[in-house]
Amino acid sequence: MMNLRFLRVRNPLVRECMAEFLGTFVLLLFGCAAAAQVKTSRETKGQFLSVNMAFSVGVMSAMYLTKGITGAHLNPAVTLSFCVLGQVPWGRLLPYSLSQLLGAYMASGLVFLVYYEAIMDFSGGVLTVYGPNETASIFATYPAEYMSLGGTFLDQVVGTGMLMLCILCLNEKRNTPAPTELIPAIVAVIVLGISVSMSGNCGAAINPARDLGPRLLTLTAGWGTEVFTCYNYWFWVPLVAPLIGGVLGSFMYTIFIHMHLPDPDDLENHSTISTISDKCKQEDTTWEHGFEIKSAHL
Amino acid sequence: MMNLRFLRVRNPLVRECMAEFLGTFVLLLFGCAAAAQVKTSRETKGQFLSVNMAFSVGVMSAMYLTKGITGAHLNPAVTLSFCVLGQVPWGRLLPYSLSQLLGAYMASGLVFLVYYEAIMDFSGGVLTVYGPNETASIFATYPAEYMSLGGTFLDQVVGTGMLMLCILCLNEKRNTPAPTELIPAIVAVIVLGISVSMSGNCGAAINPARDLGPRLLTLTAGWGTEVFTCYNYWFWVPLVAPLIGGVLGSFMYTIFIHMHLPDPDDLENHSTISTISDKCKQEDTTWEHGFEIKSAHL
Amino acid sequence: MMNLRFLRVRNPLVRECMAEFLGTFVLLLFGCAAAAQVKTSRETKGQFLSVNMAFSVGVMSAMYLTKGITGAHLNPAVTLSFCVLGQVPWGRLLPYSLSQLLGAYMASGLVFLVYYEAIMDFSGGVLTVYGPNETASIFATYPAEYMSLGGTFLDQVVGTGMLMLCILCLNEKRNTPAPTELIPAIVAVIVLGISVSMSGNCGAAINPARDLGPRLLTLTAGWGTEVFTCYNYWFWVPLVAPLIGGVLGSFMYTIFIHMHLPDPDDLENHSTISTISDKCKQEDTTWEHGFEIKSAHL
Amino acid sequence: MMNLRFLRVRNPLVRECMAEFLGTFVLLLFGCAAAAQVKTSRETKGQFLSVNMAFSVGVMSAMYLTKGITGAHLNPAVTLSFCVLGQVPWGRLLPYSLSQLLGAYMASGLVFLVYYEAIMDFSGGVLTVYGPNETASIFATYPAEYMSLGGTFLDQVVGTGMLMLCILCLNEKRNTPAPTELIPAIVAVIVLGISVSMSGNCGAAINPARDLGPRLLTLTAGWGTEVFTCYNYWFWVPLVAPLIGGVLGSFMYTIFIHMHLPDPDDLENHSTISTISDKCKQEDTTWEHGFEIKSAHL
Repeated sequence: MMNLRFLRVRNPLVRECMAEFLGTFVLLLFGCAAAAQVKTSRETKGQFLSVNMAFSVGVMSAMYLTKGITGAHLNPAVTLSFCVLGQVPWGRLLPYSLSQLLGAYMASGLVFLVYYEAIMDFSGGVLTVYGPNETASIFATYPAEYMSLGGTFLDQVVGTGMLMLCILCLNEKRNTPAPTELIPAIVAVIVLGISVSMSGNCGAAINPARDLGPRLLTLTAGWGTEVFTCYNYWFWVPLVAPLIGGVLGSFMYTIFIHMHLPDPDDLENHSTISTISDKCKQEDTTWEHGFEIKSAHL
Repeated sequence: MMNLRFLRVRNPLVRECMAEFLGTFVLLLFGCAAAAQVKTSRETKGQFLSVNMAFSVGVMSAMYLTKGITGAHLNPAVTLSFCVLGQVPWGRLLPYSLSQLLGAYMASGLVFLVYYEAIMDFSGGVLTVYGPNETASIFATYPAEYMSLGGTFLDQVVGTGMLMLCILCLNEKRNTPAPTELIPAIVAVIVLGISVSMSGNCGAAINPARDLGPRLLTLTAGWGTEVFTCYNYWFWVPLVAPLIGGVLGSFMYTIFIHMHLPDPDDLENHSTISTISDKCKQEDTTWEHGFEIKSAHL
Repeated sequence: MMNLRFLRVRNPLVRECMAEFLGTFVLLLFGCAAAAQVKTSRETKGQFLSVNMAFSVGVMSAMYLTKGITGAHLNPAVTLSFCVLGQVPWGRLLPYSLSQLLGAYMASGLVFLVYYEAIMDFSGGVLTVYGPNETASIFATYPAEYMSLGGTFLDQVVGTGMLMLCILCLNEKRNTPAPTELIPAIVAVIVLGISVSMSGNCGAAINPARDLGPRLLTLTAGWGTEVFTCYNYWFWVPLVAPLIGGVLGSFMYTIFIHMHLPDPDDLENHSTISTISDKCKQEDTTWEHGFEIKSAHL
Repeated sequence: MMNLRFLRVRNPLVRECMAEFLGTFVLLLFGCAAAAQVKTSRETKGQFLSVNMAFSVGVMSAMYLTKGITGAHLNPAVTLSFCVLGQVPWGRLLPYSLSQLLGAYMASGLVFLVYYEAIMDFSGGVLTVYGPNETASIFATYPAEYMSLGGTFLDQVVGTGMLMLCILCLNEKRNTPAPTELIPAIVAVIVLGISVSMSGNCGAAINPARDLGPRLLTLTAGWGTEVFTCYNYWFWVPLVAPLIGGVLGSFMYTIFIHMHLPDPDDLENHSTISTISDKCKQEDTTWEHGFEIKSAHL
């Protein structure tokens, strides 16, 4: 019986790389297309917030597509953080990262195709990195004029740190987890929050693949080597700083929150040990009574 | 005993067509009314984003109204994709599509009635397709001046492909499904994302009924045949391209994600076969332990 | 033992009226305060969309506060619709409506107090209904200059009809219900959608209490009788039209959707009767298989 | 065996203070960074609404991080209200408040570092409280020119009262609670609503720590004592008024809603006592029948 099953990939790593590829593809397709729409329409068909929202929706959709397969990293900085935390084998780091990069490149290419005429109309046919008609920023991120190297590096470290700090707690059963089936939506909201608060200095890449993929596309599609040489070879900052920031954010979460949560052994085997977390929950359930009683003394 | 039940329609197909009619009616009522509000108020009572949001809310409401009855396609491109995927019988394609078209036409008519005075005030009483006082774009979509036929065709293929790619995974129990009762809200967010990222070139119809219904209304309500002849008979692009795009997006989902998910048989009968998806979930549940252990080696 | 319980109201109707009062109070407090903020800051601290969002959040908060007590009508048009549908006793209509009106009046009064200095600064101390420095529209709704009486009446009928049509399905177990605990949030999104699409003509009151309460406040607070006499005594339109629209929307829902849903008796006692809704669900669960099989024939 | 566990803090109060510190840190990091981005980009990279959204996302993230540990107060006015309600021991008030203040201060410091170059570029290097190039409002709140002391005091009382009134009901099992795992998201929406409706007069601090922490940062980072002395030593208003407003809002919730909910004892032990809340639920479940029957009489 003829069957499409012969196409099924048996190698788990290949399947996971396909998922990371597709997820990052979707993320960048939403995000860069929105940037192209806002830029080429001169903000008549959307504004800065539209681009933030598109990246946010892209994260959500990409996570629903791939979270069951790889955990939906979509970002080498996230993969690295999970490797450091011991949640993902180190052998996954390079293949995942390359898949993410390829997905970002391909999505940028498709956005370039779809918005080719709009970009040509907007830029007068001259693809540049500087000036009022620049279109390079549709794809990769570039720093504001006044930023120093150190400033943008710190910016990317803090932005990626916020990302890891805020998403690591969402799945923690001993704290207040988000609903498992809505984690993609919650992460999307967090990414929206980072976009509206940490993109002022250099565009909040917080993701090496999200930045390098589109930058390579612009290199090959006509913007020239300036996309790498501009701002004194600034391009390496969104590649390196997010990796450091992601790990720092993960440590911050560990030191302030995760380390102090009750042991799962204690919770399961020694339920007589009352942790503060348990106590809080008890107070919650007795609050109808407690409140009534306390009110009596007002 | 007198009873309204005699009105109840016994034919399932008629009931489903009524649902698709009503759903598309609600979708277009929200969307076109918002476009009318933004246009006729000269963006003082909303902006481009308002229209995106209204279509998004329209999708959500239409899905809650009809998802239990037909699956809430609201779009011939979606019905066609489901037919190709084998989820919906081919015999439903034409009746559903006509019902959607009729719903879109009727909603446009009601929007025209409600915003009649506003449209007349805005346009000076002359209903045109071109120029600063054009009002045809309240209803159907039109391409930007600089777009070629091929460019808009690609745009509609990609936009509708994104739609199918992103919604097909939401119901997949072997991956990370969205909560069943919130799928209308999640789809609404995806539609919002497509609206802010893929409407720059030609308005993101991605739905033949959503475009043809209002275009027929403008034809019959005073805009004349120009709504069909303008831009070199461009009107067929949002009719044909979404059908192709929807099917391509469905194939992309199948090839990259769906095909590699574990067989339901394997999951149920041979639980000893550990898929990568299972392994991921196991890692999740052991992460409190695993993390503690890994941390010890830092 | 001294106890605050002596304050507890034993009469269910009084308790319910207190809930409707408080809910409408919260709804209007959010909404009118946002209108005051946007107007008096000359759109530097928010825009038209902010007001839409504030009314939306107000609906959500008011529903969480009161839904368990009265069902959170917050609107005489909603109460009337539920009376007509047989869900709420007719004896509740007048007490609920008066409570809603009083809540709207009190909230408007508090907004007037909080934004008193801002309103005085903006208007130069002259409280008017017309002109660039008018402030009456912070509170009640007024039609656009070009609107006729019939046009605004239709507008209010359609807007309120959309509201009822979209919310009646959310709780229907035989269709695709929204999660019970998130219905306030879903309704808030629907109200947001109506605000961005149906407020162009006359402000989308779609609620007699929301309009009359603030209008009475402006009458008593210094705007004078013009708030009632202006636009040829237009004030009665948002009082009467929503009542008709709500009932029409409820009938539309009944005729197109509710009437054709399977009998609850059939579902419980005669599970062998396979409705179309059941069949859809069955198809859903077999889709992993079905799809695999269909794919083989591609 | 070497282990990071030796770092684990055994004292519950210290752990809770660490959580409140981190939560308020995250809240302010999002919020003040967005304010810096909007201000220093002269509204080209976001608008007033962006700042509202960032505070909203900050609340959500901070709550997911800390709600299981302390309940996620993030605000001395919230802690005080819970103490008055008898939900939190009075001994927690001072330590929590100081932790929140420290978190707000540290976050402001990090925002100052990250946006240092942007602030210097925007302000020309002169850090001031007044004038078109003022940058103090990125951090603490300041009243509008036309506001009196009493007006801002009332504003802060009402804003914080709305906050407590709207969040206290979310966890009430005898009313219509929000889904426990989504309470952080619902509270975030409420905070967004307050931001778009109650920030016109003096910036909607509604949180002594959120205001004093950044104000201390500006004092120590170069803005000088004017941040405290300006507007006739206005700084004490957002410290004192929210404390009063929070308690008043809690009382309002108690008197209008909480006090009249059925006793939990009654619900559990005497299920024959039919409360109004129960009756509502019964009506809900019988509505499919009830409606059919009533319809017959139309």
